[in-house]
Amino acid sequence: MPSDNRFVYIHGEIVPAENAFLHINDLAIQRGYGIFDFFKISHGHAFFLNEYLHRFYHSAEAMRLPVPLHRDALTAVIRELVSKNDLPESGIKMILTGGYSIDGYQPGKPNLIITQSPLVLPDERVLEQGISIITHEYVRDLPGVKTINYSIGIWLLEKMRQHNAQDVLYHRSGIVSEFPRCNFFIVKQDGTVITPANFVLSGITRKNILALSSNRYKTEEGVVTLQDIEEAKEAFLTSTTKRIVPITNVNDRVVGTGKPGEVALTLLNDLITLEEEDRKRGV
Amino acid sequence: MPSDNRFVYIHGEIVPAENAFLHINDLAIQRGYGIFDFFKISHGHAFFLNEYLHRFYHSAEAMRLPVPLHRDALTAVIRELVSKNDLPESGIKMILTGGYSIDGYQPGKPNLIITQSPLVLPDERVLEQGISIITHEYVRDLPGVKTINYSIGIWLLEKMRQHNAQDVLYHRSGIVSEFPRCNFFIVKQDGTVITPANFVLSGITRKNILALSSNRYKTEEGVVTLQDIEEAKEAFLTSTTKRIVPITNVNDRVVGTGKPGEVALTLLNDLITLEEEDRKRGV
Repeated sequence: MPSDNRFVYIHGEIVPAENAFLHINDLAIQRGYGIFDFFKISHGHAFFLNEYLHRFYHSAEAMRLPVPLHRDALTAVIRELVSKNDLPESGIKMILTGGYSIDGYQPGKPNLIITQSPLVLPDERVLEQGISIITHEYVRDLPGVKTINYSIGIWLLEKMRQHNAQDVLYHRSGIVSEFPRCNFFIVKQDGTVITPANFVLSGITRKNILALSSNRYKTEEGVVTLQDIEEAKEAFLTSTTKRIVPITNVNDRVVGTGKPGEVALTLLNDLITLEEEDRKRGV
Repeated sequence: MPSDNRFVYIHGEIVPAENAFLHINDLAIQRGYGIFDFFKISHGHAFFLNEYLHRFYHSAEAMRLPVPLHRDALTAVIRELVSKNDLPESGIKMILTGGYSIDGYQPGKPNLIITQSPLVLPDERVLEQGISIITHEYVRDLPGVKTINYSIGIWLLEKMRQHNAQDVLYHRSGIVSEFPRCNFFIVKQDGTVITPANFVLSGITRKNILALSSNRYKTEEGVVTLQDIEEAKEAFLTSTTKRIVPITNVNDRVVGTGKPGEVALTLLNDLITLEEEDRKRGV
């Protein structure tokens, strides 16, 4: 198995990553039952930590999984983990599983796992060229909850490879929602910035971009259709790790001019500034 | 964690169950990605083993997870496991996960886990009284594939408890499909036995009941609606562990006479006879 000399929090203690195991009775292994969240760390600063923790506890509550640590204790564990690992640019993942089940179906006491990994930022070229995506008819179960269920997203990796696409956008009957791991925005010909309102995860970057965009442009959460994308000036995705990535091709059709748009690149700069402000406010 | 002194197959060897762990990099833990299957054992005989193995390999292929053992080798491991465990009436579960992932998203080499547990048969009273169920609007992702994704089924346990229901039947826009872990049949007023044709897992017991039923009654795979249930003479579920369980109440409405019906009990006897024949044919 992949292993390294980083530390991981599991079963109430911080252990070397190579010793981080779950017994097979855990409901994540038996039934894919669990939630998670993920945020960025730079030189000890956790960006927008409050928002990520809030969403983590919200997902846990929605799936009826009590988090074994209260927020202050969880934050303290994260700080301890960060201080033990030497990973200045990294991501923290918190996974909360259904726990050890007596019958392979009823949840037990949830298992909390916290890992820290080096952050892989998107290649600079994606900002110059944009990416190509495909679409797929699907709505996630419980889209407002960050569950560990990525069966369809991972199953679609093969289809992405076949089409030489970098990501896959979900829609139902032509109404667009989100990517497996990112949110979606378009810029209409009249300059309005719009992101799907429904059947999406409340991305923290999505929320930040909505706020930043409304300072500059007419900005909406609403209905976005596949037809809207064909007529759009720009399209882009947002995510914690990727920030903003311009989309220049959808299902082999060029979006807008076929080049990354001004709105996407402007909002990316605004987001980087917002991250700097968050960092200055401190942890 | 729950542990016992039974043996489990994992990482290519048979080990005591208390030593059966997966590293947290496994894609079942990271992304709920995996498939499984489950069949019954009685005194060394595996019922309808060919059908279950066929479905297991089918699910694995559908999710693009190569099974590390060919069919003969897998069967040999199952036999060895059964001979080491002393569990005359039991169930064998084979789980195939997405394996150890280098980035928490791309599948690795799948991990195959095989466990054997004592079989808990339904209480005899359910055959005298039938069970009460509720309904919920949902269609499983990839319903023809036995994935480990039970997020919605487990999430609904609380709703079942609130309604004092023993199971929950999925439908979309009133068209019924299946339970999280069982198939569904009704008997119409004209005596036709019908089970939903679409958006269901191909249950082995469902298949056996379809064959047995067609020897006695007009039998169909087709569309079953919530309205059809209200007008039905009988309703019942089928599963590997539960065989046939009569359903006498759906969403607080009595089904038929409110008592287990003759068709359900007749087919249950036929199924028990079929199991005996399968046992006599040997393993």
